[in-house]
Amino acid sequence: MSLVVQKFGGTSVGDADRIRAVADHVARTRRAGRDVLVVVSAMGKTTDDLLRLAGDVSSVQPPRELDMLLTSGERVSMALLCMALAELGVEAVSFTGSQAGIITDATHTKAKIVEVRGDRLREALAAGKVPVVAGFQGVSTDRDVTTLGRGGSDTTAVALAASLSADACEIYTDVTGVFSADPRIVPEARRLARVSFEEMLEIAASGGRVLALRSVEFARNHHVPLHVRSSFTWEPGTWVSEEDPLMEQAVVTAVTHDASEAKVTVTGVPDRPGLAARLFRALAERNVNVDTIVQNISLHGTTDISFTVPKVDLAASLEVARDLAPGIGAGEVLSDDDVAKVSIVGAGMRSHPGISAKMFEVLAQQGVNIEMISTSSIRISCVVRAGAVESAVQALHEAFDLAG
Amino acid sequence: MSLVVQKFGGTSVGDADRIRAVADHVARTRRAGRDVLVVVSAMGKTTDDLLRLAGDVSSVQPPRELDMLLTSGERVSMALLCMALAELGVEAVSFTGSQAGIITDATHTKAKIVEVRGDRLREALAAGKVPVVAGFQGVSTDRDVTTLGRGGSDTTAVALAASLSADACEIYTDVTGVFSADPRIVPEARRLARVSFEEMLEIAASGGRVLALRSVEFARNHHVPLHVRSSFTWEPGTWVSEEDPLMEQAVVTAVTHDASEAKVTVTGVPDRPGLAARLFRALAERNVNVDTIVQNISLHGTTDISFTVPKVDLAASLEVARDLAPGIGAGEVLSDDDVAKVSIVGAGMRSHPGISAKMFEVLAQQGVNIEMISTSSIRISCVVRAGAVESAVQALHEAFDLAG
Repeated sequence: MSLVVQKFGGTSVGDADRIRAVADHVARTRRAGRDVLVVVSAMGKTTDDLLRLAGDVSSVQPPRELDMLLTSGERVSMALLCMALAELGVEAVSFTGSQAGIITDATHTKAKIVEVRGDRLREALAAGKVPVVAGFQGVSTDRDVTTLGRGGSDTTAVALAASLSADACEIYTDVTGVFSADPRIVPEARRLARVSFEEMLEIAASGGRVLALRSVEFARNHHVPLHVRSSFTWEPGTWVSEEDPLMEQAVVTAVTHDASEAKVTVTGVPDRPGLAARLFRALAERNVNVDTIVQNISLHGTTDISFTVPKVDLAASLEVARDLAPGIGAGEVLSDDDVAKVSIVGAGMRSHPGISAKMFEVLAQQGVNIEMISTSSIRISCVVRAGAVESAVQALHEAFDLAG
Repeated sequence: MSLVVQKFGGTSVGDADRIRAVADHVARTRRAGRDVLVVVSAMGKTTDDLLRLAGDVSSVQPPRELDMLLTSGERVSMALLCMALAELGVEAVSFTGSQAGIITDATHTKAKIVEVRGDRLREALAAGKVPVVAGFQGVSTDRDVTTLGRGGSDTTAVALAASLSADACEIYTDVTGVFSADPRIVPEARRLARVSFEEMLEIAASGGRVLALRSVEFARNHHVPLHVRSSFTWEPGTWVSEEDPLMEQAVVTAVTHDASEAKVTVTGVPDRPGLAARLFRALAERNVNVDTIVQNISLHGTTDISFTVPKVDLAASLEVARDLAPGIGAGEVLSDDDVAKVSIVGAGMRSHPGISAKMFEVLAQQGVNIEMISTSSIRISCVVRAGAVESAVQALHEAFDLAG
């Protein structure tokens, strides 16, 4: 019998009515003749509530105890979902991360999965039951409870789908799929029926919020087709899968944007080997997640290095850069948090020259000044003024004819 | 170093302030040079809230999933308590029932402890840490999460104290100890400094609500001294321990009462062997917890059998008795839920004749009619009209001079 993994996020199981709706959908899938394994997140705002409570109790929050605290959330949603399924006559059985055999390293609050055992899940499936597994959590090689960090429930679902050779992993959420642009900014944005893993990775990395980068990487590496869809409308959503070599690729698939980052520039960096390395090593040691890095050629023995970082990490980044600059003979360190990034993504770009030229022309026609450029083989990103980003997204969406 | 187990109930960890107060107390105990192992219940009304939510989701609640649901509560309180301890510089580490090695049978919602492994607790203590263990929960021999039912957290604490050879098990609660009568009814009731296990068992069984019967039995069987005390005033409370054979026992230690039961009478039961057995077997099969049973001698070839049951089980009890009565040639089945039981308890009763006579005289002087009588070697209980129970308790407390 074919097996599908269905993952339901926090809003999908946000209250008693929603849990019953999810149970109904799982029961229908089951009755349609498919085996189902369910992965659930904590209900709605549970995690935020628990974090607030922890803040009220103590300013010191050991990561091990934070993980113990937060993993209470999925226990509630998974037990309730099993009860709702029981009422519909579907025998379901809940499993914690530990019981499901999700073995992780010992890095609390952002553990990595090192092994998926899944024996009890296989037994439950073989007995005709629906396993309901806690997303986001695992057990470490030290036998402690761990959490997988941001996007963790998606990662759990993908890891289980890979381990159990599921036909697909359905990620249910509060939107109907992946769009050609954010529909709040571009009302005519189109839901994409299919994107490749590579495109999805670039979309996720450049501001698309539907799927966490990490779960997409995991799915690509393990060849697990993803189906991103809505638990409110239940309509078919967006398939994320291998590129089909026989199909012509769209040149541009989506326009994305990201206003969560700030720009830092270290001016007058001497043109000597190893200086950039020292800067980015120092940033890495402060756990700053550097995104785009741009360095131009050196004309007068010095160069300027610019990079973007999450706004929450700006203060730390400036501290690092300003500590380092005098010692390496660099000049001023400048920052700007009034910026945003607009990107176009498309697998067809590889074989179509001139896309970047067209992008820059469109932005110029809008009077949008480009402050930084970075590219991959299937993405072009421009850092612009934050106030210009919405009109940039709209103009690019129209120019590349993404409304279809 | 001496080890003390400290157990904190739901009201003791009811909110962030209370958790900080508990952490402060644990830290002081630690600084006073004792090793501490903490057992916590879920915060305040968590369990009620979860049960309400489960009722909203489904009318079918498989016991395994109910246990999975409810065990989320202690995760929250224990993780938060560890955080509060961390802020006070005390290294604490939380353990679920499973991690603590509380192995139970597979009877969900009222599992029995079959083994306490406790290796991780010993390791944590040896490393100078304070283990904080989830009360009420364990893991079954089938590797499923179980709960211990009513009074479960007390039982966890006593079982761990026994397994780790603790010097004492402190049960912190919202009252300051065990009293000679309910202080709401008898304002001059005295807090008892010390009661024997046997007395405590009788007090718990006859209406004293401070400790669950089961945890007292466990403590007696494993020789664990209990100290029942308040987490609000922190003053010394009541010690529950072995009877001291060298000490003169008080004749009467406490007056208790219980208004939670109803009386059932099966009239005209033929005087043949096995009929009572059939009745009480049938009640047991419906999970009715029968308390007092009274059967008088048979005068005319038939007898009346009366028994008390929790009011919530009255309907089921009547059904059972009325189904059975015709088949065994018995007469009418009567019931009365306007009754209450008043008891006197005291280890000294064994060696003092005439206590029951005095009790009956006191009740007679109050004009209280006695409807049923049952006794043990250290307890005498009378079922009376519900409306008469408070004055009965007051009169007995005064007559036996319990205000001290």
